[in-house]
Amino acid sequence: MTIGVGLLGLGTVGAGVADILSNPSGRHPLVGQLELRRVAVRDVSRPRPVALADHLLTTDPEAVVDDPAVDIVVEVIGGLEPARSLILRAIAAGKPVVTANKAVIARYGQEIAAAAAARGVYVLIEAAVGGGIPIIEPLKQSLGANRIQRVSGIINGTTNYILSRMASEGAAYGDVLAEAQRLGYAEADPAADVEGGDAADKISILATLAYGGSIERSAIPTEGISRLEARDVDYAAQLGFVVKLLAVAEHLGSDPDGTEQLDVRVHPTLLPKDHPLAGVHGVNNAILVEGEPVGQVMFYGPGAGAGPTSSAVVADILNIAGIRQAAGANGALDPLLAAGSWRQCRLVESGLTQHRNYVRLETTDEAGVIGRIGTCFGREQVSIQSIVQFETSGGAAEIVVITHEVSEASFRAALAAIADLPEVQTVAATLRTL
Amino acid sequence: MTIGVGLLGLGTVGAGVADILSNPSGRHPLVGQLELRRVAVRDVSRPRPVALADHLLTTDPEAVVDDPAVDIVVEVIGGLEPARSLILRAIAAGKPVVTANKAVIARYGQEIAAAAAARGVYVLIEAAVGGGIPIIEPLKQSLGANRIQRVSGIINGTTNYILSRMASEGAAYGDVLAEAQRLGYAEADPAADVEGGDAADKISILATLAYGGSIERSAIPTEGISRLEARDVDYAAQLGFVVKLLAVAEHLGSDPDGTEQLDVRVHPTLLPKDHPLAGVHGVNNAILVEGEPVGQVMFYGPGAGAGPTSSAVVADILNIAGIRQAAGANGALDPLLAAGSWRQCRLVESGLTQHRNYVRLETTDEAGVIGRIGTCFGREQVSIQSIVQFETSGGAAEIVVITHEVSEASFRAALAAIADLPEVQTVAATLRTL
Repeated sequence: MTIGVGLLGLGTVGAGVADILSNPSGRHPLVGQLELRRVAVRDVSRPRPVALADHLLTTDPEAVVDDPAVDIVVEVIGGLEPARSLILRAIAAGKPVVTANKAVIARYGQEIAAAAAARGVYVLIEAAVGGGIPIIEPLKQSLGANRIQRVSGIINGTTNYILSRMASEGAAYGDVLAEAQRLGYAEADPAADVEGGDAADKISILATLAYGGSIERSAIPTEGISRLEARDVDYAAQLGFVVKLLAVAEHLGSDPDGTEQLDVRVHPTLLPKDHPLAGVHGVNNAILVEGEPVGQVMFYGPGAGAGPTSSAVVADILNIAGIRQAAGANGALDPLLAAGSWRQCRLVESGLTQHRNYVRLETTDEAGVIGRIGTCFGREQVSIQSIVQFETSGGAAEIVVITHEVSEASFRAALAAIADLPEVQTVAATLRTL
Repeated sequence: MTIGVGLLGLGTVGAGVADILSNPSGRHPLVGQLELRRVAVRDVSRPRPVALADHLLTTDPEAVVDDPAVDIVVEVIGGLEPARSLILRAIAAGKPVVTANKAVIARYGQEIAAAAAARGVYVLIEAAVGGGIPIIEPLKQSLGANRIQRVSGIINGTTNYILSRMASEGAAYGDVLAEAQRLGYAEADPAADVEGGDAADKISILATLAYGGSIERSAIPTEGISRLEARDVDYAAQLGFVVKLLAVAEHLGSDPDGTEQLDVRVHPTLLPKDHPLAGVHGVNNAILVEGEPVGQVMFYGPGAGAGPTSSAVVADILNIAGIRQAAGANGALDPLLAAGSWRQCRLVESGLTQHRNYVRLETTDEAGVIGRIGTCFGREQVSIQSIVQFETSGGAAEIVVITHEVSEASFRAALAAIADLPEVQTVAATLRTL
């Protein structure tokens, strides 16, 4: 039984998918049963890396969705519209959808999931997070026995490339970004990557899968790396830490009505050098899942690129084709693969969360400063792991404090008091620490 | 719709499974639809960590398999018999099976798979390799678009614990093994772990899934760590390597008739310190999968233990329950989840394989030895990366050679010539190198 695939978009990922489908030998035999039947492109006359028969191409994406020969719709256009409308159109036509579009899923995931559940079709999204790394399917199908406690990941390759080079070369953020742009690792407009928005999209998707309920994407506290200074990466290294842009979704507890309390956030984070995520360098991604009873499992690999991403897209197509063989085209949904919501979740107010922190203060170089800083933290019950005075020149000093895990509200209160000390010129940096 | 689970064995893994099934809250809601209906134990009167109603227990495992209330049979007895017969009995009764039994699957996997395919039932084995790490399902369902080039893993926790301690403390193998036995990380009879048999079982299972065809378990070249000396771990470290017991399954090519040529093996291996598997310490496991187009992906986590293993067992039960909701109790099989064979595979004769090697020679301490050793390698076209002379005392010297990737036959020929040199007292160690 051959299954017809319709492709929306023929950029790098779309071309990668077309390439796999047209070269099935050596892959799972089910790949040979997939047939590319229609492809929507922006301009049919543009030269492409993959040879496709002319009659497959159209500039009308709705024609691909509506084509009766298309059984599965693959959306790799990206962006919010028309991607969202095309996905909903496919669902309405009873066609399963595979998409690599994290932005659409992070923002319209609930709407799309509700439509898919009502119509009884799958919307699979393995390629939306972690590129080629299998993480969506393991969360849905391999870890369902667990109570997930925390999902934390390096899920943006561009920022990890920049941070890796800042750490290895002591280079400044701006210089590395410029080179990453020259090399094609960063976009001309890098905001979605370097300000953390892309990672926030992805962690909101992972949180929904891990905890079985959606959260408000726009409410995720998000801090990027654009204000990170090379000296903080250097001081962190001297104290035994690596700085990574971490996306975290942590289960804190449950409300009396059963709503799950989550702490979901994206920020540059100091990781101890022996932490499993600390060794993830360059454009690689890794996701660490902690659960009961499994403990810690980690998934590592290339977080982007045509090859890895198309591997994930085709995996989703195969899964739909496989379950169709088992259940027929009109069978019920496998609740694991369909991954519906099954609980209410909400974000906890950030002041109520607990974290370890790194603080860099610029102070006057006088006896007693460290004591007064320590007193301010102590008054707010913020216990300190270390205070270290770095560079001193021209009567000024830099003091770095690492706290134990403390309440965010207490930490903020202590920091306000410290900022008011006459010896403290500025609170130059605050970073989260694992 | 509640699904009846029958459990064969109530050791640490069986008790872990029972514990998850009786505490579904906070896990995937499908866990709440699983009901433990019958449990086979050796002695019903023995005290157990998990409370089960008396009427669930029986000493007759066939009664569990045959019980009409049991829809899915979970085999966690271990060992070859009666496990194999019970699995086949369940299949014959049309009941899907979940097993953590790598020994049975490595030896009787073909027989079991053929019976399961004929009867149209699943036999799922996530817990058989890598404990709690999702690796079986990702290989079956998430990486099917790929041409797998190599699967390499640290898949025996006991030996990795021993090697980690040998490396960090410079301790001797025998001392660390004795302590591992005291701590319960190694069995009283450690042979299956330290001689590599357990890892060979597991890599034969991974190879079958990655390449779609079974190989002869007994033909896998297997070398354990029991003859590994602390000095080789130390010299490797000085040269920038970590020694790990690696299980590898590599695709070398295809015969004219389409049979796939595989190099599958287990041996202590020198890994460069920056290799993704080099940082896997203690009882953890990790599996690195390399494929086209995905590149390198790695799966990391706890390789054994009641919690991780029962997480994997229950994942398999959930998968069967999920697909049963989609396809009905008598639906067809999902070809990805069922994972039948789809190609012929064979092991390539070891002399035809290519490897990098580490060799330690004990020689007399005379000028010209290194030159003569180099000449022997050169005559056989074995190109050398480094020759280093270590410790010298009492007229004797130790020389360590690291070769480039060379044919095994050439390497063996060169080694034979070197062993015949009058200055060479003994070829004290040879190890593979990545």
